[in-house]
Amino acid sequence: MKSRDDKGTNTTKKMVEEITSMREDFAQWYTDIVKKTELIDYSSVRGCMILRPYGYAIWENIQRELNKMFVASGHENVYMPMFIPESLLRKEKEHVEGFAPEVAWVTHGGDEELTEKLCVRPTSETLFCEHYANIIHSYRDLPKLYNQWCSVVRWEKTTRPFLRTLEFLWQEGHTAHADADEAQEETLRMLDTYAGFCEKVLSIPVIRGRKSDKEKFAGAKATYSVESLMHDGKALQSATSHNFGDGFARAFGIQYTDKENKLQYVHQTSWGMSTRIIGAIIMVHGDDSGLVLPPAVAPIQTVVIPVSMHKEGVLSRAESLKAELAEKYRTVIDKSDKQPGWKFSEYEMKGVPIRIEIGPRDIEKGEAVLVRRDNGEKIQIKLDEISEKTGLILNEIQSGLYKKALKLREDKTYIAADPESFKKILEETPGFVKAMWCGNPECEAAIKESTGATSRCIPFEQEELSDKCIYCGGRARKMVYWAKAY
Amino acid sequence: MKSRDDKGTNTTKKMVEEITSMREDFAQWYTDIVKKTELIDYSSVRGCMILRPYGYAIWENIQRELNKMFVASGHENVYMPMFIPESLLRKEKEHVEGFAPEVAWVTHGGDEELTEKLCVRPTSETLFCEHYANIIHSYRDLPKLYNQWCSVVRWEKTTRPFLRTLEFLWQEGHTAHADADEAQEETLRMLDTYAGFCEKVLSIPVIRGRKSDKEKFAGAKATYSVESLMHDGKALQSATSHNFGDGFARAFGIQYTDKENKLQYVHQTSWGMSTRIIGAIIMVHGDDSGLVLPPAVAPIQTVVIPVSMHKEGVLSRAESLKAELAEKYRTVIDKSDKQPGWKFSEYEMKGVPIRIEIGPRDIEKGEAVLVRRDNGEKIQIKLDEISEKTGLILNEIQSGLYKKALKLREDKTYIAADPESFKKILEETPGFVKAMWCGNPECEAAIKESTGATSRCIPFEQEELSDKCIYCGGRARKMVYWAKAY
Repeated sequence: MKSRDDKGTNTTKKMVEEITSMREDFAQWYTDIVKKTELIDYSSVRGCMILRPYGYAIWENIQRELNKMFVASGHENVYMPMFIPESLLRKEKEHVEGFAPEVAWVTHGGDEELTEKLCVRPTSETLFCEHYANIIHSYRDLPKLYNQWCSVVRWEKTTRPFLRTLEFLWQEGHTAHADADEAQEETLRMLDTYAGFCEKVLSIPVIRGRKSDKEKFAGAKATYSVESLMHDGKALQSATSHNFGDGFARAFGIQYTDKENKLQYVHQTSWGMSTRIIGAIIMVHGDDSGLVLPPAVAPIQTVVIPVSMHKEGVLSRAESLKAELAEKYRTVIDKSDKQPGWKFSEYEMKGVPIRIEIGPRDIEKGEAVLVRRDNGEKIQIKLDEISEKTGLILNEIQSGLYKKALKLREDKTYIAADPESFKKILEETPGFVKAMWCGNPECEAAIKESTGATSRCIPFEQEELSDKCIYCGGRARKMVYWAKAY
Repeated sequence: MKSRDDKGTNTTKKMVEEITSMREDFAQWYTDIVKKTELIDYSSVRGCMILRPYGYAIWENIQRELNKMFVASGHENVYMPMFIPESLLRKEKEHVEGFAPEVAWVTHGGDEELTEKLCVRPTSETLFCEHYANIIHSYRDLPKLYNQWCSVVRWEKTTRPFLRTLEFLWQEGHTAHADADEAQEETLRMLDTYAGFCEKVLSIPVIRGRKSDKEKFAGAKATYSVESLMHDGKALQSATSHNFGDGFARAFGIQYTDKENKLQYVHQTSWGMSTRIIGAIIMVHGDDSGLVLPPAVAPIQTVVIPVSMHKEGVLSRAESLKAELAEKYRTVIDKSDKQPGWKFSEYEMKGVPIRIEIGPRDIEKGEAVLVRRDNGEKIQIKLDEISEKTGLILNEIQSGLYKKALKLREDKTYIAADPESFKKILEETPGFVKAMWCGNPECEAAIKESTGATSRCIPFEQEELSDKCIYCGGRARKMVYWAKAY
């Protein structure tokens, strides 16, 4: 494990477009990354982003891994129309109140004005409910475990790539069950699926918990979420899972005949994860050199960079190495005429987990230099062991990123005993604040008003920090995670 | 290869919902199939369909196979916004004239009227062009080989599931090249990709050719298509590939600096295939018992049906057989309490290529009965050979369906020498009509007027049937395939 002279890297570092330092300006750092690593581009459509090949490939990897989990637990994919007639959207009262202010309305088709305007789906509960009312008749038709991959639109005033866009890609699961217990089980199973996905596939630690009534989904009986913490101490809701009880079923008339031949309403759930999660990947793992991608979703897991490419035998050896690695890992070779140092920092910026440098001296020794993106370590490796070692190191990076992120979250998780210290924590060292709450929405609103923090979730793992509500001093019912949030 | 007594099938045949016979009413046969095999459902959104799990799974298989081909030829996936500002749509004159009459317009976001209305993309040339103008600067940036999987909207008056819907799923490839030759090469390469996909993956024979100017895409220099023939003798345009020349590049200012440091316009292509192709699968392979699916895209390739399920050992043997087959093929087992005969016709209707029946007597003999959907053949097979044989038979079905469809097309392809026989053919024995054409759009329009047939394509494989245009008698320039079309 000898370190290689890295003068090359330093002298050419400046050639790669610079990324603002995180400490200097976190928001600018984020914007620099999404643009300069070519994840996205802007278009003339306000608030909508273009997912470029590198950004879209991350989403494809997320889709593939998450879809595997859904299918393994018996879910089936479907596709619903992208339009919802106004009258259909209005069928569930709370739901329409929650969504109507932020939908895009289609009023004309071709030259004709529509007799009923259509909204572009902000979410598809109403469409699934209408369909379920058509196809569910008997207990034999249950459960229905459907999922849809699609894009949705919410008319946001201010937008930021991945975090808040007018249109975004997501999946929305919609299920119908015979009874309340089964629906609750599904709600929590899918929350667990998301938690496992975040932790194992994205290396992002999450807090599982229930949302306060104020923060729950429009029309839900209960909303659960997984919450993660970004580098700047702000939280990001990474996925949600809702239990609707039989509220939608009553509004849409989704009934089935049970085994005793009695009519019953179904109980429903819905759950979703969106391209927003790519924002979390950036803000949890990234650093001042750019992206750091967890190997499981990195579009490129390994890049082979030939050094002194013009020297005899280098390119052909680099190519055979690339071919060998490509059998097991997503591997590319960069044979462009840029300087090696330039390439090093380019792939560093793009967050490629492993870079392999191979030059004439390496080949002579039957070796190559492997460089880890997560910690910068340079490792001299025998060429005949490189494929196996690459696999081991990718695994190490995957779990190492998780540990690093967990430590970051723990370092930025605080306990507040009174409103003043709560406020001070958020001003001086932003992060998660654990504090007791009486359950009164007025206290919740007052805390938000005075600190800017919202209740992120009521975690399943409760601690009794005190017996008093941090705001009103009344009897505390729950420990809550609070934070400023994206 | 002993035939099994199939009384069971006949007596329960009636239990499965009946499908109108093809000869009796082809349109109703089609509608019965799409509804009764649960490919789709209707919704309260006019002209939009719900792709149910069985229908969507076919699309997922199409997507996977087609995407593999795109990636293998160097294409990258991206995602563009679903909205196009009116001013952007208007940038290329022919393009907006072709599409404006059939777009859906978003005029309000939330409660606010938009200052500029947005159309829901009917196709995304304009968005790709705007992006290309931003990211293409030098010859080093070329070619750009992008593809997008998404849904698009066209405001059709009359709609039919898969064939013509307000919203449909598709992929649209958009590429930019340094010169005209490369763009033409790409246009034809992608047409060939579609042809190969139709023939090898969908078992659908196609005619490759160029569209007449009247039938070409709005804004294209040349449009090419692959055309297939349905059971009822009507044609279906199965995919298109367009060469735009530098028309869009000039309208959008997409220029690059070449190696001599001179500014040049790029040359572009676009190409697409949609869920429409599922309509072709139905109408090329289907029969009076329902769907017949090519194994390569069938959601279920093999169904195992235990017979006398309550008898000892049957279910466990059937399950181990299912597990064995599932390692290599998309396999399900039906353990529901329906009668075996009912199940037989249900999976027949759903077009599952192979059904395997296994009962106590079969197990005693170490055998099972394999039934082919394509020709109804029943084959007694040793259980220890069944996995291998299943693979061979799936291949046979895949190529057999192609041959059958090719024979059907050949049987329904006619030559017309004069307008009267042309008209008579289409009235009496609808199909492809080959006839010579002078190239004059007026003759083309007159033929459409008198026969209802449109020019489907000018095939690459030309024949000189005569030296006179079938309509005006002037000098013939091209042999054209004509047909009534979906």
